[in-house]
Amino acid sequence: MAQAPVPRASAVRVTGPASARLGPADIDRARERLDGRVWRTPVVRCEQLDALAGTRLWLKAENLQRGGSFKVRGALLAVEELAAAGSLGVVAQSTGNHAIAVALAAAGHGLRAVLVLPHDAPPVKVRRIRDAGAEVAFAGPGLAERVAAVARLREQHGYDEVDPYQNPYVIAGQGTATAELLDQVAAEGHRLDAVVVPIGGGSAIAGACLATAGRHTAVVGAEPDAVPAFLAALRAQRPVTVAARHTIADGLRPEEIGRLPFALARRRVRAVVGVPEEAIAEALVAALVHARLVIEPAAATALAAAISRGAEHGADVGVLLSGGNVEPALVASLLAAWESGPTAS
Amino acid sequence: MAQAPVPRASAVRVTGPASARLGPADIDRARERLDGRVWRTPVVRCEQLDALAGTRLWLKAENLQRGGSFKVRGALLAVEELAAAGSLGVVAQSTGNHAIAVALAAAGHGLRAVLVLPHDAPPVKVRRIRDAGAEVAFAGPGLAERVAAVARLREQHGYDEVDPYQNPYVIAGQGTATAELLDQVAAEGHRLDAVVVPIGGGSAIAGACLATAGRHTAVVGAEPDAVPAFLAALRAQRPVTVAARHTIADGLRPEEIGRLPFALARRRVRAVVGVPEEAIAEALVAALVHARLVIEPAAATALAAAISRGAEHGADVGVLLSGGNVEPALVASLLAAWESGPTAS
Repeated sequence: MAQAPVPRASAVRVTGPASARLGPADIDRARERLDGRVWRTPVVRCEQLDALAGTRLWLKAENLQRGGSFKVRGALLAVEELAAAGSLGVVAQSTGNHAIAVALAAAGHGLRAVLVLPHDAPPVKVRRIRDAGAEVAFAGPGLAERVAAVARLREQHGYDEVDPYQNPYVIAGQGTATAELLDQVAAEGHRLDAVVVPIGGGSAIAGACLATAGRHTAVVGAEPDAVPAFLAALRAQRPVTVAARHTIADGLRPEEIGRLPFALARRRVRAVVGVPEEAIAEALVAALVHARLVIEPAAATALAAAISRGAEHGADVGVLLSGGNVEPALVASLLAAWESGPTAS
Repeated sequence: MAQAPVPRASAVRVTGPASARLGPADIDRARERLDGRVWRTPVVRCEQLDALAGTRLWLKAENLQRGGSFKVRGALLAVEELAAAGSLGVVAQSTGNHAIAVALAAAGHGLRAVLVLPHDAPPVKVRRIRDAGAEVAFAGPGLAERVAAVARLREQHGYDEVDPYQNPYVIAGQGTATAELLDQVAAEGHRLDAVVVPIGGGSAIAGACLATAGRHTAVVGAEPDAVPAFLAALRAQRPVTVAARHTIADGLRPEEIGRLPFALARRRVRAVVGVPEEAIAEALVAALVHARLVIEPAAATALAAAISRGAEHGADVGVLLSGGNVEPALVASLLAAWESGPTAS
């Protein structure tokens, strides 16, 4: 797997007064507001995965979170703000998990919600949104088509957008997962040298950078080789659209990093690991077979990066297992392939 | 699922001085000794499973435990006692998880270990024992054949037996899983009305009875309809051998309850739920799809009982997810069947 050192940035762009103020204190406030409303998900240890990685891995199991991913953290805060301001309803685009999270948060406030997903989003994610009582609209496979659809829906309904990348409450909320992980590891008498985080639109890594600001813990990003949006942004020194190939990591398909996440993360991220598709599939199976956790391919991307490169970053490495919303059929086929494959032992 | 009320027993038989003294204080001592040597496994909540059960379920995820099951708790204590007494090596019979646990514990003390398993034990369990450096011997599919093989091996090698049912350290160790669960639920501001525990040879339910002695929490057992050993023992008022049919719950195949576990549990158990094979398979898939946990069929037996009958026992029901050592091929086939079956939604 390729790993790029991060060039120093000359400036950090921010996008508005609220986001300009984002700092570690916002993570603390977000944690207070979320207390008792999200699960304090466990940190799982697994000796077989440690052996594969050659270092101690601390797996933050946000696949066990409400709604099946860490994204409920940010959505709860963002939707609560809108509800308090008298919102008529909310709309958001997403590859799936942010949409599930917004749907759950909207239901909690009795708000209507319309969520825009790619045509080929995993059925399990679509079902979860509808189960929460929200409406699903499909647009494109691409980010630009979803963004355009959101603009139309805002105008049509007068709903408020919950942007998955630009909303500062979303970013702060996502950062609470990393902050909680740091505390949980400290409670076990250890200190994380690094945390490995998957990169899609960028909210997870931006949140991780906020949560680790001024601390010893380095932030390492992981993105599919098929969609190297963060690496491209680092090279261009601004978010750019990449030509995305197919990846099983449906949650990491945004072909451009959000501006706010990139501004928050570009200087703090120590390295970005590009992960091949086979390694994503292998890590998903390793989590099932060794750690007995069902994770989605986005989370497996971070685990794969931690297994292949984590040891370079220290003796105690956290991994944000971002979600567990994976098609049962995909799990079945990956397990069956593993059983019959050359790596079975 | 059938559920039998438990007849009152007229007397409790115990089997020796150490076991006669077994009480809640032994659980406390066991917890102190195990502190830092086993994972404090998480208690997982899952709203979809709560909805299926019609009550709040608190899932003690011992599938994430060292060695893949709660049995490492008892084995660590029992083998430590033998090692301190100058043991040459250890031998034990098991359907698999106790054997893995004894193998790991023996390795920790540099002791040789020979473990006797059924011929058709899951390969994943055999592999884990060998990975720990221990020797595997196969005997029977039946309990009597394994017991006879252990007697031969003891004589042949001069090794000490770590009996999975009669060893009081094993029982006390297994009870720490339930004790920990009670504390973890209390820390969340709740109190368990009942805990549902799978019944194989009986160490889990005996440990649960010790851990809940004098407390509000009722103990509910779950065993496969195919191997109704505890229900038969209750009717006969002593352990009896039942004609076992095939069950996918390989860990719950012992066709007779251990004497010590039965003596400890018979008066304290509130109910025993017999679980059909289809319900075991469905609960295993439900744990994967909804709770994102890989559990073995023995643990799924307890989950199935909690889903079908848990609500009768109160608003807060614990479930001992006893282990996660399941064949990947079985998981793949159950998932594939679920995807194509009428229950998929």
